[in-house]
Amino acid sequence: MRWQFLSLLALARAAPNPKNHTRLPHNWGVALYPAFDILDIAGPIDPLFLLSFSNQINLTIIAETLDPVPIQPAYSAPNPYNSHFAVSVNPTHTFANPPPDLDVLLVPGGGADGESNPASVVDFVRITYPKVQYLITICTGSGVAAQAGVLDGKRATTNKYAWAEVTPLGPNVKWTSPARWTVDGNIWTSSGVTSGLDLIFAFIETYFGTKHARELQGITEQKRTFDPCDDPFAAWYSITPVGNCRLGYPVKKAH
Amino acid sequence: MRWQFLSLLALARAAPNPKNHTRLPHNWGVALYPAFDILDIAGPIDPLFLLSFSNQINLTIIAETLDPVPIQPAYSAPNPYNSHFAVSVNPTHTFANPPPDLDVLLVPGGGADGESNPASVVDFVRITYPKVQYLITICTGSGVAAQAGVLDGKRATTNKYAWAEVTPLGPNVKWTSPARWTVDGNIWTSSGVTSGLDLIFAFIETYFGTKHARELQGITEQKRTFDPCDDPFAAWYSITPVGNCRLGYPVKKAH
Repeated sequence: MRWQFLSLLALARAAPNPKNHTRLPHNWGVALYPAFDILDIAGPIDPLFLLSFSNQINLTIIAETLDPVPIQPAYSAPNPYNSHFAVSVNPTHTFANPPPDLDVLLVPGGGADGESNPASVVDFVRITYPKVQYLITICTGSGVAAQAGVLDGKRATTNKYAWAEVTPLGPNVKWTSPARWTVDGNIWTSSGVTSGLDLIFAFIETYFGTKHARELQGITEQKRTFDPCDDPFAAWYSITPVGNCRLGYPVKKAH
Repeated sequence: MRWQFLSLLALARAAPNPKNHTRLPHNWGVALYPAFDILDIAGPIDPLFLLSFSNQINLTIIAETLDPVPIQPAYSAPNPYNSHFAVSVNPTHTFANPPPDLDVLLVPGGGADGESNPASVVDFVRITYPKVQYLITICTGSGVAAQAGVLDGKRATTNKYAWAEVTPLGPNVKWTSPARWTVDGNIWTSSGVTSGLDLIFAFIETYFGTKHARELQGITEQKRTFDPCDDPFAAWYSITPVGNCRLGYPVKKAH
């Protein structure tokens, strides 16, 4: 039954996309590293996966090695309650041998071990950004991109809880708050964790159209934030307002 | 710096929990099966993982075999755009040899291949439910639990987009709509995908307290739905109202 609906979606998409983009972003890569935040990747992956039944969307997972990447840090810092979270995701490619034709690079946040971002993922983002159409960061993933230097002179935001920790990583970045997400050219950055869902719906709406965004919103039951400036957590964490969250993004009200 | 904050949390939790529960739910297991919805598991896992720094919380992944479990279906149904989503999660235990001391079993939705739920996961839920303190289903995971018979006579909800497909799997279930989530005794069920986040915050608030729920909400920047009856997608998909979403759950306004 779900397939009947998906087939309808497919039929609806059989005609060439009417939007005037040179190339829809088909090939997505996630840059993964230990202690990544699993919701930072699952938030965008879920609607993209559903979109892949009505558009060709491919997704790969790229990491330093092909070993499973754990969400749990290596605990150089103490794990006071001896908790064990046995969750890991499998890479398909390495930073040394990534897919050759990525359209979008997605960088999640992480670093629950309190250590600096691994040099390998910072280097990969620095090398890869010039080759892709779009860079998307979720949560403290903007700290990785800032360290890579690719956010210099660009608007970006990050998790408001981690604001004081992340923003010094990019002294030349136009850090912006309040912002649920920001857009600057081909760079989209979200605030903390669940704001990645609002970012990806806005991205899908921009490049694949409102019809798809609305259908996927219904299937995932996401109570979307449509306004990129609607960021209650900036005040929650008393971030001094800075930058302009309205720039770069054509705000559309889908309802 | 994040660790400094987490250490404060740890100190705050060093005193015995004042709530009068015989045993806090420490040991969580996720029942995984091919074509599971990754956001159905990542939504709850993320705040639970953050909670694991201030309480002992362990999480295991249980599946039919120890092979990686893919989010992509085996495509007995057509994949019209030849999309490829190379995402998989690694089990730690099998249905035949699960952890012996689970407190909570979490069952995600899935089945993007349109096939019926695998008998192995249905059997595992049937056998395991009597041994755990709590059963949580996300999205169409309530269809798995319904097929297992453990929802008979209980309030439950499911993804409103999949309502007509899932509810016949449990003719003796008190299916409830509108409902962002339901509670009936030790069974919590959520509506579609992202509603699992609202469920898990409500669960954490109920058993671990408002302070933790609020801290984790801030870190994940979740725009929580606090009212289990606040379910716009029931009307979105024109579901005839049935049942009472207010029963069983002590509705609290945290703000």
